[in-house]
Amino acid sequence: MSEQAQFELFAFWRSSAAYRVRVALALKGLSAHEQNIDLDAGEQRSDAFLKISPLGSIPALVQEGHEPLTQSLAILEFLDELQPTPPLLPSDLYGRARVRSIASMCAADTHPMVVPRVKKYLQTAGGFDDTAWRAWQIKWLSTGLAAIEERLAGSSETGIYCHGDHPTMADICLASIVAVTRVFKITVPDIPTIDRIIGVCDQHPAFMKADPKKQAGAPG
Amino acid sequence: MSEQAQFELFAFWRSSAAYRVRVALALKGLSAHEQNIDLDAGEQRSDAFLKISPLGSIPALVQEGHEPLTQSLAILEFLDELQPTPPLLPSDLYGRARVRSIASMCAADTHPMVVPRVKKYLQTAGGFDDTAWRAWQIKWLSTGLAAIEERLAGSSETGIYCHGDHPTMADICLASIVAVTRVFKITVPDIPTIDRIIGVCDQHPAFMKADPKKQAGAPG
Repeated sequence: MSEQAQFELFAFWRSSAAYRVRVALALKGLSAHEQNIDLDAGEQRSDAFLKISPLGSIPALVQEGHEPLTQSLAILEFLDELQPTPPLLPSDLYGRARVRSIASMCAADTHPMVVPRVKKYLQTAGGFDDTAWRAWQIKWLSTGLAAIEERLAGSSETGIYCHGDHPTMADICLASIVAVTRVFKITVPDIPTIDRIIGVCDQHPAFMKADPKKQAGAPG
Repeated sequence: MSEQAQFELFAFWRSSAAYRVRVALALKGLSAHEQNIDLDAGEQRSDAFLKISPLGSIPALVQEGHEPLTQSLAILEFLDELQPTPPLLPSDLYGRARVRSIASMCAADTHPMVVPRVKKYLQTAGGFDDTAWRAWQIKWLSTGLAAIEERLAGSSETGIYCHGDHPTMADICLASIVAVTRVFKITVPDIPTIDRIIGVCDQHPAFMKADPKKQAGAPG
């Protein structure tokens, strides 16, 4: 695989899940042409996009001749198999399980709580005002990060990154949650291990390139 | 690997995520000793269990000498690597991405919405009564299943199961969501492809063995 890979990535500047794919593409030296799906304008619910991603979720990674790939965890695994170097998973069985578990704690148990479709439901059927929505965001982002802090701080497998000294899917997903907290100006206290690891990610070119603020469509 | 594998599985009879691990263990011919974590009694928030699973989520798969494994998707991948036969993923790159995407649509974007910690928050801070909670359950289970139906019905890769003619992670996760709808007596209409596939799963010994109604602690 090389830069010739012809991918279209359906994404939005601040999307946490699209951020994950951007980091992975950059780590692998792959590139994709981005198609903007404006979540604030509801473009994810257009008929055209629902044909690509029936849940209306981004990212979707499209390659000619293949069904669209959706779901960030599945796309990370796909990119890691397509272009194995540098690896996004450790080489040992238990290490891979640990990294995938941390990735899921972010991508499965934390992020889905704060996506636009949930906001929309809570602010209509659920009767949430802006204050209640913000409390909801803080609740689930804090709960997820506190649990990950516990896992990371208590393990000898934690290194410069979440698992050893190279970035893995765990760092990609963790940084994607921290990116959400930054976009929404939410400060989660008492997560020193996470703060330290994110400090390292912040200096890594692949993570820097994926920064929401640097994407097309981001507020100036 | 063989039946000698010494696993402890922290689970609860109706847990959708624990169901996934039960099916995978059965498909692989592996066994685990179950430890009951009574979600209704709040045992997932005990100090002892939070040491195993810092998010208080089940399942956790514990093997002596190793960190506890949490998160069902990570555990499914682990079991598939530990005991590769029969495989839970197809042999081709794009097929694996498709199966993992369907699995994530269930385990990441649908199920986390309806777990006990979300119910607790909505019924306290969120002001939801029983009717609002049931509407919430129906909303997210229906949304997820409708999107998966769309994906399955529109693809030539769909076979007897979600992907071809053998059960994969996609079927395990899909059946785990349908199992939730059955426990809560929620009927999701207009999902004929899913209904057909679940009809096949219902006849498969590994899925039958994992049936929530058959687990210790299930109501009589």
